Amino acid sequence: MSLNALLSPKSIAVVGASDNPKRIGGVPVDLLKRAGFARLYPVNPKNETVQGLTAYADIESVPEVVDLVIVALSAEATLPYLERCHALGIPAALVFASGYAETNEPEGIARQEALTEFAHRTGMKVAGPNAMGNANFPAGVFTTFGQSFQPGEPAGETALVTQSGNMCATVFRLARRAGVTFSQVINTGNEASVELSDYLDHLAEDPNTSSALCYVEELRNGPKFLAAAAKFRAAGKLLAVYKVGASEKGAEATRSHTAALAGDSAAYDAAFARAGVARASELSVLADLAYLHGLGAKIGGSNCAILSISGAAGAILADALALNGAEVPTLPDDVQRAISAQIPGHSMVSNPIDMTGNIVNSNDFLSECIRLALSPDDIDLLLLYTPGAFLALDQVEKAAAASGKAIIVIDTFAMADRDRLAAAGIGYFDDFDRAARAIAAYGAWKKADTGTTIAPPASASWPTLPTDRNALSETEGKDALAAFGMPVVHDSLVQTAAEARIAADKVGYPLVAKLVSPDVAHKTEHGLIRLGLNDADAVADVFETMMAKARSMHVHIEGVTLEPMLQGGVEILAGVTRDPVFGWMLTVGLGGVWTELMQDACHALLPVDAAQAEGMLRSLKGFKLLDGYRGAPKADVAAAAQAIAALGAAVLAGGDRLREVEINPLLILPQGKGAVAVDALVLLNATETKVEEPA
Amino acid sequence: MSLNALLSPKSIAVVGASDNPKRIGGVPVDLLKRAGFARLYPVNPKNETVQGLTAYADIESVPEVVDLVIVALSAEATLPYLERCHALGIPAALVFASGYAETNEPEGIARQEALTEFAHRTGMKVAGPNAMGNANFPAGVFTTFGQSFQPGEPAGETALVTQSGNMCATVFRLARRAGVTFSQVINTGNEASVELSDYLDHLAEDPNTSSALCYVEELRNGPKFLAAAAKFRAAGKLLAVYKVGASEKGAEATRSHTAALAGDSAAYDAAFARAGVARASELSVLADLAYLHGLGAKIGGSNCAILSISGAAGAILADALALNGAEVPTLPDDVQRAISAQIPGHSMVSNPIDMTGNIVNSNDFLSECIRLALSPDDIDLLLLYTPGAFLALDQVEKAAAASGKAIIVIDTFAMADRDRLAAAGIGYFDDFDRAARAIAAYGAWKKADTGTTIAPPASASWPTLPTDRNALSETEGKDALAAFGMPVVHDSLVQTAAEARIAADKVGYPLVAKLVSPDVAHKTEHGLIRLGLNDADAVADVFETMMAKARSMHVHIEGVTLEPMLQGGVEILAGVTRDPVFGWMLTVGLGGVWTELMQDACHALLPVDAAQAEGMLRSLKGFKLLDGYRGAPKADVAAAAQAIAALGAAVLAGGDRLREVEINPLLILPQGKGAVAVDALVLLNATETKVEEPA
Repeated sequence: MSLNALLSPKSIAVVGASDNPKRIGGVPVDLLKRAGFARLYPVNPKNETVQGLTAYADIESVPEVVDLVIVALSAEATLPYLERCHALGIPAALVFASGYAETNEPEGIARQEALTEFAHRTGMKVAGPNAMGNANFPAGVFTTFGQSFQPGEPAGETALVTQSGNMCATVFRLARRAGVTFSQVINTGNEASVELSDYLDHLAEDPNTSSALCYVEELRNGPKFLAAAAKFRAAGKLLAVYKVGASEKGAEATRSHTAALAGDSAAYDAAFARAGVARASELSVLADLAYLHGLGAKIGGSNCAILSISGAAGAILADALALNGAEVPTLPDDVQRAISAQIPGHSMVSNPIDMTGNIVNSNDFLSECIRLALSPDDIDLLLLYTPGAFLALDQVEKAAAASGKAIIVIDTFAMADRDRLAAAGIGYFDDFDRAARAIAAYGAWKKADTGTTIAPPASASWPTLPTDRNALSETEGKDALAAFGMPVVHDSLVQTAAEARIAADKVGYPLVAKLVSPDVAHKTEHGLIRLGLNDADAVADVFETMMAKARSMHVHIEGVTLEPMLQGGVEILAGVTRDPVFGWMLTVGLGGVWTELMQDACHALLPVDAAQAEGMLRSLKGFKLLDGYRGAPKADVAAAAQAIAALGAAVLAGGDRLREVEINPLLILPQGKGAVAVDALVLLNATETKVEEPA
Repeated sequence: MSLNALLSPKSIAVVGASDNPKRIGGVPVDLLKRAGFARLYPVNPKNETVQGLTAYADIESVPEVVDLVIVALSAEATLPYLERCHALGIPAALVFASGYAETNEPEGIARQEALTEFAHRTGMKVAGPNAMGNANFPAGVFTTFGQSFQPGEPAGETALVTQSGNMCATVFRLARRAGVTFSQVINTGNEASVELSDYLDHLAEDPNTSSALCYVEELRNGPKFLAAAAKFRAAGKLLAVYKVGASEKGAEATRSHTAALAGDSAAYDAAFARAGVARASELSVLADLAYLHGLGAKIGGSNCAILSISGAAGAILADALALNGAEVPTLPDDVQRAISAQIPGHSMVSNPIDMTGNIVNSNDFLSECIRLALSPDDIDLLLLYTPGAFLALDQVEKAAAASGKAIIVIDTFAMADRDRLAAAGIGYFDDFDRAARAIAAYGAWKKADTGTTIAPPASASWPTLPTDRNALSETEGKDALAAFGMPVVHDSLVQTAAEARIAADKVGYPLVAKLVSPDVAHKTEHGLIRLGLNDADAVADVFETMMAKARSMHVHIEGVTLEPMLQGGVEILAGVTRDPVFGWMLTVGLGGVWTELMQDACHALLPVDAAQAEGMLRSLKGFKLLDGYRGAPKADVAAAAQAIAALGAAVLAGGDRLREVEINPLLILPQGKGAVAVDALVLLNATETKVEEPA
C-alpha cells in the first residue's frame, strides 16, 4: 500500500494549528518550520498568523490541495472536517484526537466506527485517531505532536512502528542510545483505517528503510501482517517485533486498552516463525536488532568465536550466549594449534580463547588471533573482550577490514571509542548479557527457515457436513481424514451384542471397544473406552455395560466400535485450532500429559508439509522417546510427519464449518511400520455462525 | 575469621615499591598517599625515596612491624621474602605476583602449594597470589594495583568479592553506574590460603558492610561458604552471587582457568537456595540487588503493584515481572473501586493500574493512587511508570514518606532526577526488564525459606558394608534403608524354580520377578525384570529364563526376588549423590523419562526434612500427576515426603563408604495408602579411596 501522501507529503495543512509551539496543534507547525518544510499551511480561524506563518481560516481557503491534512481538533469536530477535506480531494489525513475506541465507552466506539466507515467510503488514507503522529527523517517531515523526534536528528535506515505513543518515544530513545538512526517513526494510534500492517507493507518498499522495529499490542489482521513480513524477508530487510502480552497479566492488561482481537501468544510465536520475523524478548533487544542489522550484512548466524583477555569474561560470555540460544563451537584442531602458538602458557584456545592479559600489545598479535578465530566456516562472528585501555583498536580495525565476518567488541568498562568502532563497522556492547540476547536473536532471525507457505491443492474433499450437530462421530472423522491420506485404524461399528461377537472375531484380539457418540468428549473418564479385550465374551459384556452407561447419560448413541489394539509404538497428538488473528494453527505434542504438564508442544501455522511436520516433532523435548529411547525401536517419524501433513491439508480443504480437528492419539509404530490415527475429533461450527476469514 | 590486618591495616609496607605511580609496585603507594594513609613504608633497595616517601632497603629496616606487607615482587622472589616478613612477626601479606597455579603448569602449581604450606605453617594471612588487591573505602585503605578504585569514591555499605580481577573492576563500575557505593572491594586471586569464604566470614561481621556481591568461579569449600552465608542471613545482610559456568561451555572455560573442584551447577543452585543466597542471573542483576538492598528494608518480596500513565508500559512491566518470577496480584475489589473513583473513563485498575496520560498533575491524585495501590497486605512494592516530564516528584516523595513499602520509579526516558529520588529512598530504573529481573531476584531472596539445616540424630545405623564389592544388592539396600524408616516392598529371594513356585503363591499375584545381582545396573534392558506374572507356572518359567540369561552374562547371581506388583500409584525417583563441593545432594523427580527428557527434577542439599521434601515434590512441573490428575486419586504425598526424608537421614548416617543411593521407583500410592520403595540402588566407594569431607 502506498502511503506516500501520509508519510512523505509534499504539502501539509494543520487544522487546529496553534501559535503555541508546545501545544498539540502547535508542535507539528514548529517542527515542520524548523525542518524547513515549505508548503505548510496552518489553519486557524482566530489568528492571522500561526508561529509567524500566514494562517488560513479554513481548509477551503488553503491555496492548494495538500497531500496531507493534520487534524488537531476535538473528536467531535474531526469527522465533519474530514468530510470537507475529502470534498476538496485531499488524499490523506492524520487524526490526533483521542475519545474513540480507546475509551472503551459506547460513544467513543461508535465515533471510531464512523471514522472507519468514512475512510472505507472515501478511500482517504486516515491515520489514527489517537495517534501521536509520525516523523520522516530523510524527507524532513514531522507530523507529530511528540517532542522526541526533532529536526536535526541524523537520518538512518531503521523505521519504527508502534501501537503506543509512549512506546514510540521509549524505543526511539533507547535505540538512539544504542547508536541506531531512523528513517521513519510511526505511531499507528487506534488504527481505525490505516493499520500497522499497511505501514509495514509501505516500508517494505521504502528505499530509505532497511529494517523495521515494531511495538505490537494486537494485530487486527494476521494474513495481512504475514504478507507484509514476507515482503520484508524477500527484500532482505529486518522486521523485528516486540509483542506485549506474553504473560497472562500482560495479555489481560493489553486487552483492556485495545479493541483488537486477542490472539494467542503461541500463535504469534508460530506466525513470527513462519514469516521469518525476529521476535524481541525485550525492548532493548528490539533496539539492538536494528543496531546489529545496521552493522552490515556480515552476521550470518549466531555461532560465535570468543577472544578475551580475561578467562572470566570468556566464560561469562559463553554462558550468556548458550543460555540465550547462540552457539560457541569448538574450534578445529589446526586453528587451536595456530592460536596456541601465539599465546604463551596453557590457556584455553578451544573457544572461548583466553589470550591472558599480558600480551595484547605485541605486534599484530591481536589481528592475527582475530583472523584465526574467524577462519572456520562455522563461525559467524567474533566477540572480542578487551575492555578499556586494553583495546588495540588499530589491530581490530585491520582485522575487520580483512574479514567478511562481523567483529563485536565487548567493553564492560564502557571506555571504547564508539564512533571509531562504528566507522569501521565494528560492533560494540558494554554488557555481556545484553550482547548475548541481541546476537542470539539476530542469528536466529538470519537463519530462520520459513518453509512452505503455499498450501498444496486439495487432494480430496470433505463429505457434506451435518448441520444438526457440532461434531462428527469418530468413525465419520476418521473416514473424512482418510480421504486426505491420513492412515487410520479401521474399526467396525456394531449395534448389538451379537454383532459385537461376530465383528470382534474378525477384528482380532486384543481389541479396543469405544462407544460412538458425538456428545461425549472424554470417553475414558466415563468408562466408554475399554482396552485389551481378549475374547468375544468379554467384548459382548463390555458392549452391554457401555450401552447401559450411555443410555443413563442421555446422549445420542451410534453404537460401539471395535478396533485392533495396536501394540508398541509411541502416542502423540496432532490438532488444529483456529486462532482469531492468524487462522489455522497446528499443535503437535507427545500426548496429553506431556503437552499439558510439561508444555512440550510445538505450534505452526498451516500449511505445513511433511518436512516441516518432522521438524516440529524433532523440536520436542520428548523427541528422544521417538528416537530409540532406552533401547526401544525408533519410531516411524517420517510416516508420522506424512500423517500430520495430511491432517493440515484436510483442515485447509475443510473450510469454515470446521472448528477444530484433533488426532489423539496418533500412534507412531516402529520404523517402517507407519503411523496411524487411533482416534479423531472433528468439531464443527454451527451453520448459522459464519466464521469470517481474517483476510 | 578476622582479617583486620589484611583488610583494615593501620600500617603497610610495600615491598617492590615503584617510583612510577602507574606500575604495579607504584599504584598502591600512589593510592595510599593520596588517601592520606600515614604509616606507609615503601621498600626498595635501589631508591632513597619512592614517590616522595622515604624508601627502605628491606623489610627489616622498616621502623615498625607493619600489619600488612604488600609483596610486589616476582613469583620466584615472593616466598623467601614472606619468610623474612614472618620472622619479623608481620601477620598479613598480599601477593600480587602471577606465575602460580593459574599457569596450569607444574612449576606454578608447585609454587602455589609451597605458598599454601607456608601460610598453614606460619598462620600468616596470605592473600593471593595473582591478586589485584583490595580497597577499603571507609578506612581509606587501597592495597590494589587496579585503577578502578580511587580515593574520593563515596563510601557505602556494599562489599564486592571476586575471583577475577577483571570482574572486580567490571562489577564495581557497573554497580557504581547503578548508584551503588562500596565498603570494600576484594579480589581473592588464586586463594592459596585465604579464600572467598574467609572474606565472607569476615564481612558478615563488618559493621560497615550490609551487603556483599560475589563473582564466583569455583568454591573450594562448600560447607565453609554455607556457614558464612548463614551468618549473612542471620544478620539480615544480603549475600548475592553471580556464579559463572551455568552452561557447558562456560563451565569448561571456568575449569580451564581455575584449579578448584568443579561442582555441579545444580548443586550450586541447591546450595544457594539452602543458604538463602541470592543467585544473580547476570552481572547487572548482581549490581541491582545491592542497589535495591540499599534502598532500605522496605521490600518484603516481589508482589508488585504497577501504576502507569501508559497502558502499554503497564502491560510490558506485567509481562517482564511474570516472566522473571515476580507477581502482579489482582488488587482487592474495594481498592479497585477507590482507584476507579480517581481515574476518569474505564481504564484498567485491577493491576496494572492504567492512570492514562491526562490526569497526573491534578492535586494529590498521584500520591493518593500510590497510597491505595500499596494498601493491600499482599503488595510488597509499587512500580511507578511516569517517564520524563510526567513525574510529579513531590507527590511521589509525599507518598514514599507516608508508606512503609518501597516505591520504584521506571523512567524509560532516563530523565528523572536520580539524586532527589535517592535522597527520598525511592528506587529508579530506566529499563523495564532490568527492573523486573532485579526485583524478582531480590523478592525471591527476601522470601527465601532456608528450612532445616541441622541434621537429626541418626535413628538407626547401617550394617557393616561389604569391602569386596561396590554395590549392595537390592535386598540389602532395601533392608538397610528400612531401618531408617523407609517403607519398602518386601520381597522373597529364591534360588530355585521350586522355591519360586512356593514363594510366589505366598507373595500373591500379579507379581514382579527380578534377578538379584550387584553387577547388573540396567536390568530391564536385559530382560531381568518381568512384570505382571499371574501364576506359579509363569513364575517358574521366568525364573529359568532369567538365570540362563544371567549365567550367559557371567555376573554374580544371588537369585531372583519375587515381590507383589503394586497396582495404581505414581512412580517417582529419589536419589542422593555427593557433590565434590557441597557434599550430599538429594534429587527428586517424576521417574526416569520425566527427569531425563524434561529436566523436571528438584535438588536440595541434605539434611532435608519431610516438609522440605514435600516442597520439593510440589515444585515439580509434573506435580499435578500426584495431585488428582484427570480424575485419578490424589497420591499420598505426605507419605512420600516422609520416605524421602528417611532416605536423606539414612545417607547422612551412612558416611564416606556410600557413593550414591537411589530409590527408583518410589511408588506413591493413593492418599492414606502410603508410599513404598520398589527398588533401591546403593553404590559404595572402594575402601581404599577414602573420600575427604569438604569441611
